[in-house]
Amino acid sequence: MSDVGGYANREPMDGDVWSKWELVGSTELDRLHLNRLNEQLSYLARQSPFYRRKFEEVGRRAGPLKSLEELAEFPFTDKAEIRDSLASSPPLGEHCAAPLDTVVQRQVSSGTTGVPSYMAYTERDLESVSEMQARCFYAAGFRPRNLVLHAFAMSKGFVGGLPMCQAVAYMGMSLLPVGAESGAERIIQIIRAQRPAAVFGAPSFLEYLGEFCNSSGGGQASDLSIERIVVGSEIGGGVPATRAKLETLWGASVREMYGLSDLANGFWAECRFGQGMHFTGQGFIHPELVDPGTLQPIPLTSGAIGELVYSALGREATPLLRFRSYDLIEVVGEDCPCGRTSPQIRVLGRTDDMFIVRGINVYPSALKDVLNSLSPVATGKFRIVKNFKGHSTAQPLHLKVEVTGDFQAAARQIETALKARLNIRAKVEPLEKGALQDPPGTKARIVEDVSGE
Amino acid sequence: MSDVGGYANREPMDGDVWSKWELVGSTELDRLHLNRLNEQLSYLARQSPFYRRKFEEVGRRAGPLKSLEELAEFPFTDKAEIRDSLASSPPLGEHCAAPLDTVVQRQVSSGTTGVPSYMAYTERDLESVSEMQARCFYAAGFRPRNLVLHAFAMSKGFVGGLPMCQAVAYMGMSLLPVGAESGAERIIQIIRAQRPAAVFGAPSFLEYLGEFCNSSGGGQASDLSIERIVVGSEIGGGVPATRAKLETLWGASVREMYGLSDLANGFWAECRFGQGMHFTGQGFIHPELVDPGTLQPIPLTSGAIGELVYSALGREATPLLRFRSYDLIEVVGEDCPCGRTSPQIRVLGRTDDMFIVRGINVYPSALKDVLNSLSPVATGKFRIVKNFKGHSTAQPLHLKVEVTGDFQAAARQIETALKARLNIRAKVEPLEKGALQDPPGTKARIVEDVSGE
Repeated sequence: MSDVGGYANREPMDGDVWSKWELVGSTELDRLHLNRLNEQLSYLARQSPFYRRKFEEVGRRAGPLKSLEELAEFPFTDKAEIRDSLASSPPLGEHCAAPLDTVVQRQVSSGTTGVPSYMAYTERDLESVSEMQARCFYAAGFRPRNLVLHAFAMSKGFVGGLPMCQAVAYMGMSLLPVGAESGAERIIQIIRAQRPAAVFGAPSFLEYLGEFCNSSGGGQASDLSIERIVVGSEIGGGVPATRAKLETLWGASVREMYGLSDLANGFWAECRFGQGMHFTGQGFIHPELVDPGTLQPIPLTSGAIGELVYSALGREATPLLRFRSYDLIEVVGEDCPCGRTSPQIRVLGRTDDMFIVRGINVYPSALKDVLNSLSPVATGKFRIVKNFKGHSTAQPLHLKVEVTGDFQAAARQIETALKARLNIRAKVEPLEKGALQDPPGTKARIVEDVSGE
Repeated sequence: MSDVGGYANREPMDGDVWSKWELVGSTELDRLHLNRLNEQLSYLARQSPFYRRKFEEVGRRAGPLKSLEELAEFPFTDKAEIRDSLASSPPLGEHCAAPLDTVVQRQVSSGTTGVPSYMAYTERDLESVSEMQARCFYAAGFRPRNLVLHAFAMSKGFVGGLPMCQAVAYMGMSLLPVGAESGAERIIQIIRAQRPAAVFGAPSFLEYLGEFCNSSGGGQASDLSIERIVVGSEIGGGVPATRAKLETLWGASVREMYGLSDLANGFWAECRFGQGMHFTGQGFIHPELVDPGTLQPIPLTSGAIGELVYSALGREATPLLRFRSYDLIEVVGEDCPCGRTSPQIRVLGRTDDMFIVRGINVYPSALKDVLNSLSPVATGKFRIVKNFKGHSTAQPLHLKVEVTGDFQAAARQIETALKARLNIRAKVEPLEKGALQDPPGTKARIVEDVSGE
């Protein structure tokens, strides 16, 4: 294996933390990232026609920067540019900075338009992705030699497929590479027989899986062997009611992780205290928080809300600089008893999923939290029917909501709760339980766009 | 990585062969296998209660053997015993010979009864599986740094999933881990964009994929980038008409490989001459050929037909000794210009798929070959309707066959050809094209058992 500049281990540190880099103070981390960023800028200028052009367009030489703040003088990279780069310069785009014959693996993401986006990895890139993911797993209590069942989708080139298997091997866990595509019946059968201690998957799928187990007559999911769960790839794991439901269903701890297909599987993850996600990308990804309106930097301090923007450090193939995530996060803490020095965040939603209803900001995660708290009147499954252009509406928000019991009473109760808790007006269209089921293994849909945009 | 006793490389030999062990003479190979077998027997006696008991039952000490012929004094291991071992001693059975905490990966196979069977791997086991698979890929012309698309199923714990990815990485190819579950549209889209030189998958799926491409209006599969194809996991790649069809569809070379979930992905594979599959398991698997009736050993020489029986060498977790494959093979050659010293085989079918129709042996592959030769009257898709107990019938064989054109004329033409070419009487039930389509990514079904057995 290639070395990644001393930022990857294959052994945990003592105690609760995988890497010493999760514990360094901000001065030391800033120094590390400034050095790594300057190396990366000069690498991009040398190797990537895409970034060379972007640097020229803003009349900015690649570096060296004297402080991390100077990074704000560089342009953002947008998903649309990456799509164009891939389309105009196949197979890996003009932004790809490594020779094709050093690329050992490619993953595919669907992108919002349905046109696949491609990410490439050198051996070194794969190792850095595994190292970040190992820090996530370790924070959540997964330990070397634990048996873990893979319950994300394994196919389609999804980064949650093979790269998760590689991270499991990297950190010395034992793997059952089963995948969400296997279907609930087979997965439950395998859990019964093989007794994995841990599982990872999408929260909606693991909820479906647990409920399938409980309703199929062979015993409760909470009596199975699963002790620890890591969820990711969609909102849910950070929603208190969803987490509580999953923890009860499985009799297991649930921890959330978060990453971005374009960069790495997971580089934010919760520790055993479970109060928001710590950054785990030290040495490999430099995060910035920006105001989603002005795109100006915001400090990552408690209470801050903004969009995360990422710059890859040491990334050889398909690197990204100041890549807009469109993920809106809130910093929910800065001190944690676990000793990790990074602040903790929660993902509120997509900046392009945020709605302004009569002047009030609403995130899908907040809607989900309210609905979950009304269980069993609401099942927790819902859709925002986007019947307006843009993200702002003066009308009540149209929601399709799965309910149980009397339709009209349920709808009224939900509307009242949304008004009381989020101060928004909603028109609830009640639907029978099961009406909004997503196909197993797929991301839960939240928005149904009927605006004709 | 652990060393596997000098039998694994991570570099090809010069020229057309991955490992020097593919070139050694029979004396040297027998000596190697006798030594490895004696080590394995003593390992099994020490580590596996299952094998200790089996050795005691035949009153045979574990070893050492003085010649490979003495192996025939040991009992066979049958799939049913392995199923019982797994059920009575979960999670990995009494036959498992490695401590659980050294098991780094487990795979799942469905077994013929639908009850999953579990295979475990230590790091060393994984490396030996990759080494054997690398020899297969290399024989077929796959080379380090070639971009290869994974088109077997990736999920369900199938050995064609993750272990194939690991073999690709092991031999230094570049991987697109896409999987048959992705569906034809997405796979074709990815091939167009990423231009892989090679692909592996089930022959029926790759046929479906190529036909989907040709019928979807965006150009011919033969104009895409695929130059080399490896097929396996079902009969088809060794059937001349199927291979010819695939080679024309894709404008690519097609080579067959064959393995067994219980042991390793692939350990028989074709070289560039494509005249049957060479053994590639030297040092890791000892094969025997036995008469399917008497179960007595048969020499692996030209013209021999029998069932393959396998003993794992150096296998740590879930090892198998004299494991009955129920695969019936024919030795089709002993000399090959490629220099490999092992004979070449073709798989004729399952010994339990072989039918005796009025005293004549019939294998599904032979039926498929005849039907393919009648294209386009027959599409190549068919089912044997097993309306009798056991494997022998005095009635004409009932076949459902997809045909085009006039039903009655097609049925008569097929019946006549089967009589002329295989000397069997068949009753052909003609069906419309598409009536026997298997779900993409699944193994083609050949037998429809209506006997009530």
